[in-house]
Amino acid sequence: MRIALCGGTGDIGKGLALRWAKDTDHDLLVGSRNPEKAREAVEEYEDELDRHGIEASISGFANGMAADRADIALLCVPAYHLVDTIESIADRLEETILVSPAVGMQREEGGFQYNRPSAGSVTALAASAAPEDVPVIGAFHSLAAGKLANLDTEIEADTLVVGDDEEAKGTVSDLAAGIDGLRALDAGSIANAAPVESLTPLLINLAQYNRDLSDVGVRFE
Amino acid sequence: MRIALCGGTGDIGKGLALRWAKDTDHDLLVGSRNPEKAREAVEEYEDELDRHGIEASISGFANGMAADRADIALLCVPAYHLVDTIESIADRLEETILVSPAVGMQREEGGFQYNRPSAGSVTALAASAAPEDVPVIGAFHSLAAGKLANLDTEIEADTLVVGDDEEAKGTVSDLAAGIDGLRALDAGSIANAAPVESLTPLLINLAQYNRDLSDVGVRFE
Repeated sequence: MRIALCGGTGDIGKGLALRWAKDTDHDLLVGSRNPEKAREAVEEYEDELDRHGIEASISGFANGMAADRADIALLCVPAYHLVDTIESIADRLEETILVSPAVGMQREEGGFQYNRPSAGSVTALAASAAPEDVPVIGAFHSLAAGKLANLDTEIEADTLVVGDDEEAKGTVSDLAAGIDGLRALDAGSIANAAPVESLTPLLINLAQYNRDLSDVGVRFE
Repeated sequence: MRIALCGGTGDIGKGLALRWAKDTDHDLLVGSRNPEKAREAVEEYEDELDRHGIEASISGFANGMAADRADIALLCVPAYHLVDTIESIADRLEETILVSPAVGMQREEGGFQYNRPSAGSVTALAASAAPEDVPVIGAFHSLAAGKLANLDTEIEADTLVVGDDEEAKGTVSDLAAGIDGLRALDAGSIANAAPVESLTPLLINLAQYNRDLSDVGVRFE
């Protein structure tokens, strides 16, 4: 499949690009508002893969070019850039599934708190901004980006997948499960997205309060 | 230690009573609004322990008697009975730590949703109802009650502990960690309780949507 990582120069984009390059044969396109920045990131990712004996060909583009004719486009951007990123690529989406891993949070007394958008969740916000025929799936929220990006580390984590389009949800779940050690679990419809997204500030707080935990993920069992 | 399980005739009370009877030598007191119901539950728990070759002496009382001079009193009651249960035992609490495992939730489109009380969380609600010198700790929310109560099953789960009194939080964390396979993680102050409590409806939804998951707990790693 053709996978676009819009905003893929950040932590989570890097981790996912490296893992998919290592574990799958998907075509990977890293996007950024600035195509030069995307190409620099791709060079860095290819060097890192090369150090692990993995030959991969990833491409760097402006976000719109990366999303063009992609089967799946991930919105690896902060929640406050979600809507403008979707608007900037909207006319390139043709039978493309949009995936939102974004979480809104704020630091409050005692730790990070989930910042629930008035749309109900960040995934719902993405769905409201996306063209009507483009399915939006929430996934990859609670992954420890540092662990993903460190190819010497084995992943053993779950990601929760929410969406209203069952076929698209299945496609994204398969994409997730293509990463060794990552399990995709169905968390239901977008109406269920808020508690899924609010896991991320919880994980950050746990890493802060517990000496033995860092770059922490979650398993349901 | 002397541990009171107020409302301990329900699922979570049963599971915790059986596990502490099996794995620790704490004095266990099961409370109910109706002392007769508490004594019946205790008989059932002792029979179950006996079937596993464990000799345990648990006592059944009215909630107030169970909480009397307890080191720790757990409020194993639905969120909507939390305040009246605290009021019914308030004059018995002497150097007692109150523990709230309760979660408010409601069934909505797509699944269960966390029902956040206006106090900010169920734990904060308990803290506001408790006598001023009684520390309140939130813990044991996300445990699979069925797995706890089935002594043939090994537990491998985390419980998240929140509280504003560090010493009391440590005592409750030690109590939790006394159960084989249960790990207590510090999730910070009561200000962080809402995302901890909202894990429970998420776990219920995951069990509903994923065939391989039932009686599901959570691990952070």
